[in-house]
Amino acid sequence: MSEFLFERLCLIGVGLIGGSIARAARARGGIARTIVAHSRRPETLARVRDLGFADVVEADAGRAVEGCDGVILCVPVGAYAGVMRQIAPHLAPGCILSDAGSTKGSVIRDLAPLLPPGVHLVPAHPMAGTEHSGPDAGFAELFEGRYVILTPVPNGDPAAVERVAELWRRCGSMVERMDAETHDKVVAIVSHLPHLIAFTICGTADDLAEETREAVLKFAASGFRDFTRIAASDVDMWRDIFVNNKDALLEMLARFTEDSHALARAVRWGQADFIEDRIRRGRRIRRGLIERKQA
Amino acid sequence: MSEFLFERLCLIGVGLIGGSIARAARARGGIARTIVAHSRRPETLARVRDLGFADVVEADAGRAVEGCDGVILCVPVGAYAGVMRQIAPHLAPGCILSDAGSTKGSVIRDLAPLLPPGVHLVPAHPMAGTEHSGPDAGFAELFEGRYVILTPVPNGDPAAVERVAELWRRCGSMVERMDAETHDKVVAIVSHLPHLIAFTICGTADDLAEETREAVLKFAASGFRDFTRIAASDVDMWRDIFVNNKDALLEMLARFTEDSHALARAVRWGQADFIEDRIRRGRRIRRGLIERKQA
Repeated sequence: MSEFLFERLCLIGVGLIGGSIARAARARGGIARTIVAHSRRPETLARVRDLGFADVVEADAGRAVEGCDGVILCVPVGAYAGVMRQIAPHLAPGCILSDAGSTKGSVIRDLAPLLPPGVHLVPAHPMAGTEHSGPDAGFAELFEGRYVILTPVPNGDPAAVERVAELWRRCGSMVERMDAETHDKVVAIVSHLPHLIAFTICGTADDLAEETREAVLKFAASGFRDFTRIAASDVDMWRDIFVNNKDALLEMLARFTEDSHALARAVRWGQADFIEDRIRRGRRIRRGLIERKQA
Repeated sequence: MSEFLFERLCLIGVGLIGGSIARAARARGGIARTIVAHSRRPETLARVRDLGFADVVEADAGRAVEGCDGVILCVPVGAYAGVMRQIAPHLAPGCILSDAGSTKGSVIRDLAPLLPPGVHLVPAHPMAGTEHSGPDAGFAELFEGRYVILTPVPNGDPAAVERVAELWRRCGSMVERMDAETHDKVVAIVSHLPHLIAFTICGTADDLAEETREAVLKFAASGFRDFTRIAASDVDMWRDIFVNNKDALLEMLARFTEDSHALARAVRWGQADFIEDRIRRGRRIRRGLIERKQA
């Protein structure tokens, strides 16, 4: 077996995630002999050439994947169907097609029907990121110590799944597997709903009367400040995540709204026991995270 | 004039805030010749004696304030009315009574009617804190570079307000003034609503089916993790804040809920423009904070 997991690995999209995979492959070795980078934006391609983290920079998606034994989609999940139409005729038999999207049900929905015979689909979600985006934002250590969730498709090739798992382990990540539906529920509450809340509360503050809004910006204490850090995320990526994990997200928002109304009612009627119980549950969850070293 | 702002300053409550004021007075000088510490809990008093950050440790609230020219309430705002009944007969004419509570309308409501003639009420809110509490949690630098909002009462003594302002400046804080109603609205959206949301979402996660809950704890990405940091706050303090800033908090929660439903509707119907607009507003607010060095 070659010293490399992949002979020729194509990254479709070279923003924070794609750029970090390319850098990790360079920095850690053993991942890919040749890294091909594709972006549909000429300015991104020019920047990737300057940064030098890819061996080949290719403006045409179809040509980019030709001769590759690995392809990873690193674009917003809403672009998957369009990208797949472009690359599917050019995917070689035996090629592994993976991705880095934050939703997995929609990814299987959009990619599986167009999958050529002999090409192996291995959906993946590296749970790592920053509030920054673009080819300059990536760094080789982004995935170190972070979880990557694989959601293998039914009747998929186990060897292909294991090769993608090994890619992420070589990037420094811990790999877990679950079905796409469970994944989508978990990330809805862990990540997508917090982002929806953060975007919303920034808008709510922005709608306040001029004087109050100015004071809000001035006196943003730790509570609001942490919310806005989340809210500084990439527009295209988050629009696509919301729309493509709609069912789980709306379900979790409905549960959250019921729970917030229950707490609001207790505040209105001064029900101290109920309020204290809710606060204690928050502390308990926090302790659970600390014990799991996720805090 | 003395080298000290206060000859004898009493701190009612010596947890994170009271303990930090005492330590700042020691570390920076010029604030108080004598620091008197009161807590109703014997174990807290014993710990304060061990830590040594107060000159006098007094178990009786009335005796603690006797002979003081400054008193700062540093207990949960729900305890103010009871404390005031104990200390009011012992407050010397000319004494300045201030506080460090996160709500200001309720503080004026609870303290003003019991204020003895010649005692000056100066409500104050240092916008600083951590997720920790108790006498061990305080540190001298807690207030450095943080805002302190004073909400002077109508027809109050301007000299008393200025002395409290100077105390906070000597602790390293920036002092602002506004009316109690505006203060309560601003902190409702900046701090109280984010806390209510954080407590709620932890509870929502805790109610999920066993398997999903375990995965939530395991895969808590940055979004949820930041929320739980807020949620780890003191139970008594936050119960009291919610109940004592009820009107502003419920108003802000109602606005937030409307806005979150509007965003949820756009997600359900795939209205990309609306979703993108909400995300962009979040980024804009975030940039505003960064420009104001609050991020």
